[in-house]
Amino acid sequence: MLKTPAIVLNVKTYEEAIGKNAVSLAKSMETVANETGVEMAIAVMDTDIFRCVNEVNIPVFAEHIDPIKPGSHTGWTLPNAVKDAGAVGTLINHSEHRLKLADIDACLSFAKDFDLDQIICTNNIKTSMAAAALGPHFVAVEPPELIGGDISVTTVDPGIVSGSVDAVKTINDSVGVLCGAGVKNGKDVQMALELGAQGVLLASGVVKAENKLEVLRDLASGC
Amino acid sequence: MLKTPAIVLNVKTYEEAIGKNAVSLAKSMETVANETGVEMAIAVMDTDIFRCVNEVNIPVFAEHIDPIKPGSHTGWTLPNAVKDAGAVGTLINHSEHRLKLADIDACLSFAKDFDLDQIICTNNIKTSMAAAALGPHFVAVEPPELIGGDISVTTVDPGIVSGSVDAVKTINDSVGVLCGAGVKNGKDVQMALELGAQGVLLASGVVKAENKLEVLRDLASGC
Amino acid sequence: MLKTPAIVLNVKTYEEAIGKNAVSLAKSMETVANETGVEMAIAVMDTDIFRCVNEVNIPVFAEHIDPIKPGSHTGWTLPNAVKDAGAVGTLINHSEHRLKLADIDACLSFAKDFDLDQIICTNNIKTSMAAAALGPHFVAVEPPELIGGDISVTTVDPGIVSGSVDAVKTINDSVGVLCGAGVKNGKDVQMALELGAQGVLLASGVVKAENKLEVLRDLASGC
Amino acid sequence: MLKTPAIVLNVKTYEEAIGKNAVSLAKSMETVANETGVEMAIAVMDTDIFRCVNEVNIPVFAEHIDPIKPGSHTGWTLPNAVKDAGAVGTLINHSEHRLKLADIDACLSFAKDFDLDQIICTNNIKTSMAAAALGPHFVAVEPPELIGGDISVTTVDPGIVSGSVDAVKTINDSVGVLCGAGVKNGKDVQMALELGAQGVLLASGVVKAENKLEVLRDLASGC
Repeated sequence: MLKTPAIVLNVKTYEEAIGKNAVSLAKSMETVANETGVEMAIAVMDTDIFRCVNEVNIPVFAEHIDPIKPGSHTGWTLPNAVKDAGAVGTLINHSEHRLKLADIDACLSFAKDFDLDQIICTNNIKTSMAAAALGPHFVAVEPPELIGGDISVTTVDPGIVSGSVDAVKTINDSVGVLCGAGVKNGKDVQMALELGAQGVLLASGVVKAENKLEVLRDLASGC
Repeated sequence: MLKTPAIVLNVKTYEEAIGKNAVSLAKSMETVANETGVEMAIAVMDTDIFRCVNEVNIPVFAEHIDPIKPGSHTGWTLPNAVKDAGAVGTLINHSEHRLKLADIDACLSFAKDFDLDQIICTNNIKTSMAAAALGPHFVAVEPPELIGGDISVTTVDPGIVSGSVDAVKTINDSVGVLCGAGVKNGKDVQMALELGAQGVLLASGVVKAENKLEVLRDLASGC
Repeated sequence: MLKTPAIVLNVKTYEEAIGKNAVSLAKSMETVANETGVEMAIAVMDTDIFRCVNEVNIPVFAEHIDPIKPGSHTGWTLPNAVKDAGAVGTLINHSEHRLKLADIDACLSFAKDFDLDQIICTNNIKTSMAAAALGPHFVAVEPPELIGGDISVTTVDPGIVSGSVDAVKTINDSVGVLCGAGVKNGKDVQMALELGAQGVLLASGVVKAENKLEVLRDLASGC
Repeated sequence: MLKTPAIVLNVKTYEEAIGKNAVSLAKSMETVANETGVEMAIAVMDTDIFRCVNEVNIPVFAEHIDPIKPGSHTGWTLPNAVKDAGAVGTLINHSEHRLKLADIDACLSFAKDFDLDQIICTNNIKTSMAAAALGPHFVAVEPPELIGGDISVTTVDPGIVSGSVDAVKTINDSVGVLCGAGVKNGKDVQMALELGAQGVLLASGVVKAENKLEVLRDLASGC
């Protein structure tokens, strides 16, 4: 399982993170992880899991799995295949890939069967509690109004982090909370951790940065 | 809100419950409710809510609502319209109409805004806990293996009822549990209540019965 | 089947067209249809089909049907029920309710089984041709960039109408084309008909108008 | 573009075709393609495209693409990434992964932008005509009743093949037809080609065969 505090990067389907660029980004993360000792993981497109796993030594996650067993499911993401390609974890229910409640539960079971770390993404305190009831490793709270924007969650709405941490603990105190939006720099990371989060999940702020090493080092400095 | 213990009938899209047949079925329930004093509610197709509300005096539910506000949503089920047609409650996330977690949460908020009773359907103890965390009036547990079959839940798997009741209470003890599958007769109803349920949600056993009054009276006898 | 030229109004899930307001709107259309002899049809929410059919004498459409037979389909829209409630036709594949290709085909078959008029909505010339290959009564072309806006399709992009008419005819010349967006007034209707359309499908321009009778009379004047 | 006649294998999410087993299967196809000169292509899971492309020299297809551009689409299949990983084509709208009509059209455009061969899967003659109107390289007809079974399409229902070929030609005679179900052996391939198909799309018959080389050689003998 991910060591905490953890910095998890979701490269989505950004043009800057396809193929060799995904590998290059993962290498930058590996560099900073080695320099600082901070746990850094990357979630990449299915097409790039195998490449990243084989060329870089940091935890590689899938961005999604489908709740299916081997069989007739053309074009869906098989948990077995994600594991076989070398992923050690997966995002589940990202805001851009919402799942039915029963399917979140099923994905969680499949992930556990394959010893994949599980990060369930949620959009508010209520759904964070619901996700916590299912028992994943982490819940990543992503308030929709903060995703992709320039706003810092901890400045504008620190209550969403501390409130989620508290609410999640009342349901299941073995579940960690990641701050899933509004994290731009080391100061945001530090604040998220102070508010009780065990890490952060971020995307465009790193993927689209001119100087990725610099941004990653700044983020790591917050841990 | 529904008085408990409650018998809730979901007519799905059965041929036996379209239009005037839905009204007729609702009238049978009204008859037995009046005879026995047992709370009986019916969930009907959108097309039949207005008719049933205007011709029968029992609580009428929608089978589903979509998480939408008035606007550009052609062909979806608007909570405002369900309320306007006279429904007093709604099923949410039925096994035949699963919703994304964030949408269950949104549907619940819309239902509360319109003072509609909320029954969230779930498939196991974990998802019942997750649903309870959202705070509906009721969670109806429907183990998939029992839906539509001839098996009695309380004989085969009483633990799913008592386990759900216990688990739901640990999360939010103001949430009631309905036994949502495997209920065929008054004895099943009685057992479900003894196991801690506050009512039952059933479908084909009534809708497809030759003698509906007889089946309804038997079910009511279990309360 | 609808007489042509036809003016079809889709009330979507607008607040101004719920329940008695849907009935009132349908009555305004009936008034203008009677005054002018122009065919006017209204597509309303499922919850309002029965009321409109029973209180107004113009063709009432469903906004959508699901490709299902009677059975276990909680909360979905059953073609049989739409027919039973009195609808004489249905929109299929509206831009706000897109369907899988195989489901459009299945919906079309169900609609034919129940003698419901079929209007398949499409977004460009290619998909209009594809829809025409399935053999509905009408294809309504709605270029996404024009939906809900203030732009007149016939001014800005008359080619989408004449191009769709021509393309549809090459595939199946028994299929009529409706101009499904960018129609605001009688002049737009007239132009759409001159470009080969057999009618128009519109929404907010009527539903949200202060003086609905005035707008409807103006639209009718274009026929 | 694929040379015809072509034998296209869809490995779905079968356990027998994950990771190194997908590579091994592709190598068997390469062997038989080299022996016989018959065009053989393999559609594999996203996680295995890169591996297969780098270890085997036959055309590798994706099983599916999503109609998206680079950006914020966590966990979906980006056409750019599929191309970058080395795929030369893609299935679209497989029976296990049906798409909305507008999305089939969009996927086709994306595939063309990336010079990916396009095979749109369909379920009957009508939807084959609709797909042909969109202008893909191939339409693969898969009658649902034949998928995964032991029945030979050309014995039981040769009309679905010849009828689809004829119907597709009336719409767009540059579109090829693949026989997408009910093909088990070389004789079936031969019959499919005689009925006008330009190839076959198959799955379990090869993936689950004890002796894959033998089955592949038999299939090739039908060309």
